[in-house]
Amino acid sequence: MAQYEQWEGFKGRLWKDDVDVRDFIQNNYVPYEGDASFLAGATEATDRLWGRLQELQKEERAKGGVLDMETEIVSGLTAYGTGYIEEDMKDLEQVVGLQTDKPLKRAFMPYGGIHMAEKACTTYGYQPSERLHEIFTKYHKTHNQGVFDIYTPEMKRARHNKIITGLPDTYGRGRIVGDYRRVALYGIDYLIERKQQDFIRGERHGMKGTDFRLREEIADQIKALKEMKEMAWVYGYDISQPAKDAKEAVQWLYFGYLAAIKTQNGAAMSVGRISTFLDIYMQRDLEKGTLTETQAQELIDHMVMKFRMVKFARIPSYNELFSGDPVWATLEVGGLGQDGRSMVTKNDYRFLHTLENMGPSPEPNLTVLYSPRLPENFKKYAAMISVTTSSIQYENDDVMRPVWGDDYSICCCVSATQTGKEMQFFGARANLAKCLLYAINGGIDVKSREQVAPAYRPITSEYLDYDEVMERYDAMMEWLSKLYVDTLNMIHYMHDKYNYEAAEMALIDTDVRRTFATGIAGFSHVVDSLSAIKYAKVKVIRDEDGLAVDFETQGDFPRYGNDDDRADEIAIWLLKTFMHKLKKCHTYRNSEPTTSILTITSNVVYGKATGSLPDGRKAGEPLAPGANPSYGAEKNGLLASLNSVAKLPYELALDGISNTQTISPGALGHSDEERTDNLVGVLDGYFSQGAHHLNVNVFGTEKLIDAMEHPEKPEYANFTIRVSGYAVKFIDLTREQQMDVIARTCHDRM
Amino acid sequence: MAQYEQWEGFKGRLWKDDVDVRDFIQNNYVPYEGDASFLAGATEATDRLWGRLQELQKEERAKGGVLDMETEIVSGLTAYGTGYIEEDMKDLEQVVGLQTDKPLKRAFMPYGGIHMAEKACTTYGYQPSERLHEIFTKYHKTHNQGVFDIYTPEMKRARHNKIITGLPDTYGRGRIVGDYRRVALYGIDYLIERKQQDFIRGERHGMKGTDFRLREEIADQIKALKEMKEMAWVYGYDISQPAKDAKEAVQWLYFGYLAAIKTQNGAAMSVGRISTFLDIYMQRDLEKGTLTETQAQELIDHMVMKFRMVKFARIPSYNELFSGDPVWATLEVGGLGQDGRSMVTKNDYRFLHTLENMGPSPEPNLTVLYSPRLPENFKKYAAMISVTTSSIQYENDDVMRPVWGDDYSICCCVSATQTGKEMQFFGARANLAKCLLYAINGGIDVKSREQVAPAYRPITSEYLDYDEVMERYDAMMEWLSKLYVDTLNMIHYMHDKYNYEAAEMALIDTDVRRTFATGIAGFSHVVDSLSAIKYAKVKVIRDEDGLAVDFETQGDFPRYGNDDDRADEIAIWLLKTFMHKLKKCHTYRNSEPTTSILTITSNVVYGKATGSLPDGRKAGEPLAPGANPSYGAEKNGLLASLNSVAKLPYELALDGISNTQTISPGALGHSDEERTDNLVGVLDGYFSQGAHHLNVNVFGTEKLIDAMEHPEKPEYANFTIRVSGYAVKFIDLTREQQMDVIARTCHDRM
Repeated sequence: MAQYEQWEGFKGRLWKDDVDVRDFIQNNYVPYEGDASFLAGATEATDRLWGRLQELQKEERAKGGVLDMETEIVSGLTAYGTGYIEEDMKDLEQVVGLQTDKPLKRAFMPYGGIHMAEKACTTYGYQPSERLHEIFTKYHKTHNQGVFDIYTPEMKRARHNKIITGLPDTYGRGRIVGDYRRVALYGIDYLIERKQQDFIRGERHGMKGTDFRLREEIADQIKALKEMKEMAWVYGYDISQPAKDAKEAVQWLYFGYLAAIKTQNGAAMSVGRISTFLDIYMQRDLEKGTLTETQAQELIDHMVMKFRMVKFARIPSYNELFSGDPVWATLEVGGLGQDGRSMVTKNDYRFLHTLENMGPSPEPNLTVLYSPRLPENFKKYAAMISVTTSSIQYENDDVMRPVWGDDYSICCCVSATQTGKEMQFFGARANLAKCLLYAINGGIDVKSREQVAPAYRPITSEYLDYDEVMERYDAMMEWLSKLYVDTLNMIHYMHDKYNYEAAEMALIDTDVRRTFATGIAGFSHVVDSLSAIKYAKVKVIRDEDGLAVDFETQGDFPRYGNDDDRADEIAIWLLKTFMHKLKKCHTYRNSEPTTSILTITSNVVYGKATGSLPDGRKAGEPLAPGANPSYGAEKNGLLASLNSVAKLPYELALDGISNTQTISPGALGHSDEERTDNLVGVLDGYFSQGAHHLNVNVFGTEKLIDAMEHPEKPEYANFTIRVSGYAVKFIDLTREQQMDVIARTCHDRM
Repeated sequence: MAQYEQWEGFKGRLWKDDVDVRDFIQNNYVPYEGDASFLAGATEATDRLWGRLQELQKEERAKGGVLDMETEIVSGLTAYGTGYIEEDMKDLEQVVGLQTDKPLKRAFMPYGGIHMAEKACTTYGYQPSERLHEIFTKYHKTHNQGVFDIYTPEMKRARHNKIITGLPDTYGRGRIVGDYRRVALYGIDYLIERKQQDFIRGERHGMKGTDFRLREEIADQIKALKEMKEMAWVYGYDISQPAKDAKEAVQWLYFGYLAAIKTQNGAAMSVGRISTFLDIYMQRDLEKGTLTETQAQELIDHMVMKFRMVKFARIPSYNELFSGDPVWATLEVGGLGQDGRSMVTKNDYRFLHTLENMGPSPEPNLTVLYSPRLPENFKKYAAMISVTTSSIQYENDDVMRPVWGDDYSICCCVSATQTGKEMQFFGARANLAKCLLYAINGGIDVKSREQVAPAYRPITSEYLDYDEVMERYDAMMEWLSKLYVDTLNMIHYMHDKYNYEAAEMALIDTDVRRTFATGIAGFSHVVDSLSAIKYAKVKVIRDEDGLAVDFETQGDFPRYGNDDDRADEIAIWLLKTFMHKLKKCHTYRNSEPTTSILTITSNVVYGKATGSLPDGRKAGEPLAPGANPSYGAEKNGLLASLNSVAKLPYELALDGISNTQTISPGALGHSDEERTDNLVGVLDGYFSQGAHHLNVNVFGTEKLIDAMEHPEKPEYANFTIRVSGYAVKFIDLTREQQMDVIARTCHDRM
């Protein structure tokens, strides 16, 4: 059992025997039931630094979205010396460390794909390095090249036609949350020692390729840990030992996260569940009298400021999928322990309070792990933050805790993983709406006219027959699920080979659980289309080639989003059927397949590639995002809509069911206080039914229109909204996406 | 079925449907039964080029063994422009193409290991490139680094103590023979097309990591094929189409081989079985009247000159193992077809004749695939070449043909592989003599005093008991065989990952058979030691730590090498026991384990690391090479010695049983003619008993001593001798190795 003087006053012993941060938390945290009155405002240092950062953000926007970019240095743990928000103000920074040598400067990260890294440069007027081009084309293969070397023609066709889409083959898969708390609690040397033990423990006669891969990974993790120490040393910190106080704990933890964002440009680079953990250090220092509340808040503010600064160099096609420059620095507050105690601490307030001290912001992606059993004070404070900032999201701790325990993190928008014990193979989405059209058209894509799927028998009748459609659709989903999993298997094999996340995995158990996260796009449109075929009369409009290019639906039919079981049963059937098909496939490294109904902002791009559907949605129109009912389908108010979504069983979509709702302030109440109380009521009701996730926006359509027309108004500079799975500054969206957001249902009645 | 005008006059059809060079050969070659009188002498061009090359070789020797070295360019198919023996004489070269831009200049090949590549440079006074150092340490991992990242401590200990030794973890595994004939017969475009079909054929639902590895390998092979075309184009040749005549066939084939030696610095870079194949083109041109015998010989001479020029940058520890700068450009002549016809053609004479036209030379490593049923004329011609040059070796076609068919190549010294259908995971050797000492000393190495093997119970009696020793030895071999295979599995996994032989594998069937070639060192000493323990009285001399450091053997005992079944049965037992233990292990990529009794010149290094043995060999003395009886053990003449070795069943050592013998000219006969006839008699007798291999040297010890003392004498400049598995210029050996060669038994009676 290890003993460090830095652990003085900490209780428990399991976590000293071996890495076990959860055990440390459960033994040491102090639940907080009080209200927000203890919170401190921003310090002068915070105001000055945040002020400077806002100037930089303005410059960045003025320069077309990128302030500065590296072209000559490959990003890595020790690629740069120090970097500060402002050299002159560096003593004000309570938490230090930048991705590069300058604030908001984007690093050059070629391991995922040299062509993408270069494209990102040229897009913003930077000239990529010829020397690095030679290295990453001639001497070192990249993930992207590896994948395209082995794709089958069928996969390329499916990808090109966007039946499978958003695949992480031109960007990092991300969604791996290192347990950055370990750096603070144990120090790097302890972690190296544990990894060395794991390396030895894996020795046995008859080791095979998979053993060798793991051994090499552990070796690379140990190298990464050693380099983290060097990285911190540049800033004058020795992180080989545990952190001795709250300031060091915040700093050590941030160094762990910094290691991740210096080495990976992933689709999501979440921070994880750090709030309760850090509170233990704060509480110890507060009790000792070595820390004031103002200082505690300043530490959190400065750390959050760093999370707001995370940037990656990205290409236009990525920005189209994931609009507004998100990084998914997701960070959780709230939640209950498995022993029933609330895990809310003062720190959970402090993190939410950053939205007040420094104004609204899309990052970090603040997530409340919600339960009706959370302390009332905290529920109200969170709801109040939603009402005033529209910057946070809610996820149902009561459905996630039984699956992932009480120390899970959200690794992207909404997906839970056990912190430090799990990693995810992220898999983007299959477009099930397009798949329905393939079922009708015998595998031919109406847009490209290519035979993308197998040439199964098309439907040739004038009116669609429900049973026939279901039979064809089942066969087509069977094809799609297999192809989808095969494609992802290739991607993740090559990601491991050419772009392994050594720094992140160094902070995760060697014996890691792996999930294989697929996703569904076009969910509501399939449900409504099948409902139309079943309950109304759908006439097929065919073109000269006999392809179904449009539909005329006669009569009424139930739609998903109205708490009508006839439609909602179809929704459950669809999710279950697709999930079961995925489970039949071999998944890379024996990972556990999961799925999500979550499209982020990619619903616009996916919709563009999808033809007209029997539910009345016309070709090219955006799909509804995530698990949301289709635009205009909801006829019975917010609660009926929520009820429909809540029926989807979380165990069938463990990667998440994303629901984004906008409520007009007037519908919610006459004052912020009334709105807060009502929102708590909505959340309690929704999550009690087993729903998984809710993005809450509180504003009216007129505000969006005004912001779109007058982005220069100061009140819109930080105007943040929740979209499917993350938050974004509204003025950073493309006009097309702004229009889509405006088109979405804004509930003006409960 | 493909049709090319270049194939005019060629018979058969299977080989047109798909790549099948054997079928082409069997349908088109003309056996030659006549004598050597048709052969033509060297042309003036040959004399001039060879003269220049000898000057360069002299310069090379004067400069310490290396004429020139690349430090700035990484070797690759298209890394250089043209290169000629002498710019002024380039029109004389009938076959063009160098590894680098200058003759005998050694290329920089870092993929196996950057530190080795750099060490090779600094050893010879060259300064390695800092830029390339950065690339191959920071951005691209090498094979060597990969292996050392994952070795277990036990493996490192075993390696350091040389119980497992000569492992290809600091040099390329080599021993892969591309079917270079395919370039001539089919042209590159046809080969690309076939590989593309293989790529498609491998598609299926549920592909796993091993499928992805193969797909990537095929993709890399196709890239290599495309680059081969570029490489040839630089010299003005378009090899996309089949060769149209003998000159092109020789040139195209050589380009295939050149691709291999530009991309791999393997322990053996064999040419393969090309003689009969090329004769078909020569014969067609001779019959058409477009080629004369002089021109035919000139083509072969010039091609062989190129094989004599192959050089690699190597490190001192490699040179210690494999002395005299060998590359194993092994090339076969002779052999029979499975239909019983002799495969000897005029070309088989022409290749041997190069040793007359240009004098003796260690490379290419000319190998006669012997059968008593070969045409008498050819047997005599080959024997005559042995008697006059000591430059060739013999292998038993009658034991290899049933296993490998009639189109196998020798991929290193003596090991057969099916040409174009097989590759080998080369595995160097386990020192079974040292293993016997470990069995006696409970796993402690007498030299390092380390506990290398498991701490099994040591033998503590004063006199060794045969049954006790056998029991202990069996357990220790069990440990060693497992560790050995586990170690090799790691090496080959990493070789595939970081130093895959794309250019060679591009010329081999995708559905390749893989053998896993282990090896035994110290064979004869174990046999004689066990015989001593069984038939005499062996007293153990122990030091103060109780370790057996020497032995006193009282009484006489039978020794291996005297045709005495009592010893020879132990030899068979040893081989069988070790082989069966190897077969119990999982071998990488489900390869077939084989073993060899073959040490090359490494017997000296292995001996240095091995303590005294019960057979009377003292600590540090060289082991007997290969399957040779121990020095001084042979008491009953050459034939009795050969009879002992011949008893070892080839099927238990499919990787080869190497036997090197020196016969004093006087013992063989009074004239070269008599010696030739007698040697044919010896070979017929030896191989009729099922023996596998024989290196034949015909000279006396006095010549060796004179050459060691007076290396400057002109007659010794090209004085070539056969050592275990290859040939070497005697004056290129270290003095230590020269002494070892001199110490070996020189038979002065039959």
